[in-house]
Amino acid sequence: MIKKIINHPEAVVQEMMEGIILADANRLKRIDETKVITKKEVPIENKVALISGGGSGHEPAHVGYIGKGMLDAAVLGEVFTSPTVDEVYQAIKAVDSGSGVCLIVKNYTGDVMNFDMAAELAAEEGIQVEHVIVKDDVAVEDSTFTSGRRGIAGTIFVHKLAGAKAEQGASLKEVKSIAQKTVSHVRSMGVALSSCAIPAIGETNFTLADDEMEVGIGIHGEPGIFRTALTEAKGIAKQLVEPILADMPLEKGAEIALMVNGMGATPEMELYILYKEVHQLLNKRGIMVYQSFVGEYMTSLEMGGASITILKLDEELKSLLIAESDAPHFMMR
Amino acid sequence: MIKKIINHPEAVVQEMMEGIILADANRLKRIDETKVITKKEVPIENKVALISGGGSGHEPAHVGYIGKGMLDAAVLGEVFTSPTVDEVYQAIKAVDSGSGVCLIVKNYTGDVMNFDMAAELAAEEGIQVEHVIVKDDVAVEDSTFTSGRRGIAGTIFVHKLAGAKAEQGASLKEVKSIAQKTVSHVRSMGVALSSCAIPAIGETNFTLADDEMEVGIGIHGEPGIFRTALTEAKGIAKQLVEPILADMPLEKGAEIALMVNGMGATPEMELYILYKEVHQLLNKRGIMVYQSFVGEYMTSLEMGGASITILKLDEELKSLLIAESDAPHFMMR
Repeated sequence: MIKKIINHPEAVVQEMMEGIILADANRLKRIDETKVITKKEVPIENKVALISGGGSGHEPAHVGYIGKGMLDAAVLGEVFTSPTVDEVYQAIKAVDSGSGVCLIVKNYTGDVMNFDMAAELAAEEGIQVEHVIVKDDVAVEDSTFTSGRRGIAGTIFVHKLAGAKAEQGASLKEVKSIAQKTVSHVRSMGVALSSCAIPAIGETNFTLADDEMEVGIGIHGEPGIFRTALTEAKGIAKQLVEPILADMPLEKGAEIALMVNGMGATPEMELYILYKEVHQLLNKRGIMVYQSFVGEYMTSLEMGGASITILKLDEELKSLLIAESDAPHFMMR
Repeated sequence: MIKKIINHPEAVVQEMMEGIILADANRLKRIDETKVITKKEVPIENKVALISGGGSGHEPAHVGYIGKGMLDAAVLGEVFTSPTVDEVYQAIKAVDSGSGVCLIVKNYTGDVMNFDMAAELAAEEGIQVEHVIVKDDVAVEDSTFTSGRRGIAGTIFVHKLAGAKAEQGASLKEVKSIAQKTVSHVRSMGVALSSCAIPAIGETNFTLADDEMEVGIGIHGEPGIFRTALTEAKGIAKQLVEPILADMPLEKGAEIALMVNGMGATPEMELYILYKEVHQLLNKRGIMVYQSFVGEYMTSLEMGGASITILKLDEELKSLLIAESDAPHFMMR
């Protein structure tokens, strides 16, 4: 059984949002009666606005990435459930300064549909809206909630690079172009050691035996590629990195950003051990880590496990990656 | 059974440190053959140096707090085990610029003894060393590993405020005085919903029934005050805050820093729900939150649960609290 520090299982997202706003009232605000959280001061004149969002349960995604040089707003859904069309639409209206809005959407059928419909509604009112679909998970082509690949932790890099571009005063077209370039340069894959439980359901989403792990798992516990005996960190690193490199070959001397993302319950100690294995494996192939990210960036409630994300860099992406941001959860090492 | 992403259970601290240095080579270095990690460039001229440390398994404590305006070095022990005298001594020698060194030690018998002996060794060589003992946990007076109260998440505020003072160019005496003032102004208390397992042992430290929580637990799973039925977040908030306020009464209008710290496995969603309850409970009593901290600051491997820390502020402590720091894990909201 999974125990939780909550009040009412049906109200977890509402109450989490109340907590977020109480904790961060100097920087954030909530649009009344919605699950939309924006920067305190929006719209920002002469800046393309960025919105992301999706089901809750992946914290700090996406509210933790609201800040200078990243997102202007996040639209939350219930746990593992897409945000509504109306709420995405309200977010667009709230952040648009006339410079346009770029939506960063993880590739889940419900998310894509609802962000898309909201964009159409906004466009009818003359707001320029573009959207970019993130599908970085190389594990499976189609999945429980997707047609095509799933969007997972690589989404954070799309927030960062497109956000940095917008901060420079770029046009909507230029911001979208950077977001798309990032999507084309980023790949991820994850592993689960244990399951998680949606509060309103209470039971775990799936079950793994005491000696098992699931390779290629999604961030909602959707099935991966295979279940196998839990191996040591070195073997896990290999099982996650090789499919990424098979999908996005990297030449000797290639520079990357490397993220080891914890799924929720996995201690930071283990993330660093996995990081070491991945870093060394890549170095042996002549691939150089330009910037490292180790921590919880895109979680699945209390799921045990981790994902690896590799972002292939060039000079343009590097400068956007290290541009200043005050989003509290975007920690670079 | 608790599954882990590791290679060799006996080598987890070594391998974690390798990962940390690979990930953060621009900012950190390790003293060869030791479990001491310091800023890349030490000693820093004309600055009092700060060292903290303790057993591993509490990440991001303490390595995550190395940075400008916080620690100069962290000395690691094996999991839940005190650092050695020799390694603390080597850390002192590495960071002292002649301006002196302040040791920030959590109140566990082994830690206190070993930091103290190392300080004596260094003093014999003419290094000025002071130490401050953090004992913020109001739950129990004596415990498995302590004489007197335990040091837990409140330690992070001691790092921050003493670190900010040192950054201003203050003397060792002034830095120690701020550290002691912080200790006298900070109180914490935690609750566990589930246990953790030391990698080299493999079994969980303790067991809680499916409907139980343990109030007043320590960060190594040491016994708390009582076990009781898991209540809702509102009740947990009350059970943690009231003993703190009983021990450190706060007047109407008092300003505080409020930390809700995750023990390891608890999702950020739940930390924000608990934050909301604590914030509202304090507001009802006229106590004002000046600055919020929600996240994992001082963990116990994959233990489920959270702790509350309250730091009573005045103008001096406020300005030190919000002073700039580049330590990646010191996230303010």
